[in-house]
Amino acid sequence: MNSGTGDAVHAAGGTILLRIAYDGTDFAGYQIQNRERTVQGVLEDALTRLHRHPVRTVCAGRTDSGVHAVGQHVSFKSDHGGIAPEAFAPALNSVLPPDISVVHSRAVPAGFHAQYDARRRHYRYYLYAAPAILPHRRRYAWRIPEMPHVERLNRDAEALVGEHDFTTFAVAGEDHQSMVRHVYYARFSAANDTVVFEIGATGFLRRMVRSLVGTLVERERNRLRGAAEDSTMAALIESRCRASAGTTAPPWGLFLHDVEYDPW
Amino acid sequence: MNSGTGDAVHAAGGTILLRIAYDGTDFAGYQIQNRERTVQGVLEDALTRLHRHPVRTVCAGRTDSGVHAVGQHVSFKSDHGGIAPEAFAPALNSVLPPDISVVHSRAVPAGFHAQYDARRRHYRYYLYAAPAILPHRRRYAWRIPEMPHVERLNRDAEALVGEHDFTTFAVAGEDHQSMVRHVYYARFSAANDTVVFEIGATGFLRRMVRSLVGTLVERERNRLRGAAEDSTMAALIESRCRASAGTTAPPWGLFLHDVEYDPW
Repeated sequence: MNSGTGDAVHAAGGTILLRIAYDGTDFAGYQIQNRERTVQGVLEDALTRLHRHPVRTVCAGRTDSGVHAVGQHVSFKSDHGGIAPEAFAPALNSVLPPDISVVHSRAVPAGFHAQYDARRRHYRYYLYAAPAILPHRRRYAWRIPEMPHVERLNRDAEALVGEHDFTTFAVAGEDHQSMVRHVYYARFSAANDTVVFEIGATGFLRRMVRSLVGTLVERERNRLRGAAEDSTMAALIESRCRASAGTTAPPWGLFLHDVEYDPW
Repeated sequence: MNSGTGDAVHAAGGTILLRIAYDGTDFAGYQIQNRERTVQGVLEDALTRLHRHPVRTVCAGRTDSGVHAVGQHVSFKSDHGGIAPEAFAPALNSVLPPDISVVHSRAVPAGFHAQYDARRRHYRYYLYAAPAILPHRRRYAWRIPEMPHVERLNRDAEALVGEHDFTTFAVAGEDHQSMVRHVYYARFSAANDTVVFEIGATGFLRRMVRSLVGTLVERERNRLRGAAEDSTMAALIESRCRASAGTTAPPWGLFLHDVEYDPW
């Protein structure tokens, strides 16, 4: 994509890209649904208020109910000549509820599409090891009773890197054009009582990150209990069998961290 | 204090010490008040349910409305012979709402008092530097627009260490027997967009940590703007003048982190 002509775009409104953050707790997911409070619904309501006519948006990745974002990306066409591209952020923040925030806004070339033009998506999954729930973390991290061995988790996670058919970690019966995704990195790190799983890929199947985290953590829990390992992560991926994956980790530990686009 | 005789205490109920964590967002502070939802009120209700008669508690430090805790300590006398000291934690967690959690419980010698026997209190104040609110952090950290210089903040914070009269950072008109407290450490650290202020002392005046953080952050903001410094932190402390302190930082960034007692 070539560099956009910011000023010309501004005069005509043009295509705008937002980076948004939200607390997924009180949303029935990203995607608009009748009678449910969704991120898309609340955001489009705010855009409609600014434009005085309905505005449709597209996003980089539709997050499920309870999943958070610090780097969701949303694009839309605007015919609003009175708001500079960078000013959509403060204008929207003045009408959005406290659980959605626009981090910044900018002009992008005509035809830009936040979903189709996204090259890499980055997710983070947060866990904490504690004997009891820490209430201020209950909505933003999955509590596990014991600290896992991060190196062992990473030995498993390495098997995810590269191009694979991830059917094992998909939702049964979910329709995707292809189950193949390219994972660029997948690694755990720990600091104090917190464990973070960082993963970046071309894209993700629905609930794939949560299924991966649930499986990886379950495998480590079994190892902590001294159970024998019946298969490698590579074999689990190979099996393309949903039943061979572990439980799905809860949504509240998951954050859409960032989305990458080609420079323009 | 000498070592307690755990078994004898257990048989008779005895004195119990709880370490509790709470999300202060939906509480009108720690201390019980008529018609308000308070941490003490909700905790004593749960204890009363377990004991089938009213149970009174004392805590290490009464936190204000909106302030959180991961290491609040609460003691009470129990005549409940059916619950082992360590079992109060799971028993209470089964009846407490999700915004309070008992991390652990144990027997302490008769006469133990969570407030009078506390030797050191440790608080943490969390800030994050971001151009816009990150919704999942809005209840647990104070957003500041620019990243401060941590070394400069620490040069100011050093002046707090030692025994001082902290009238400058007290609530005007608040009645304390003495305004003198011994601060053991006070330091800032930063990682990514997060800045943490850690402070430990014999005790704190009401709102003292928030007043200190507000003042220290305001001083750094003035320096970032190139304003001349009109006084040192040491001079501010010396002045014992409330009006010379800066604004009070909001409650939602503050956590009662831990409380220390003599070994027994």
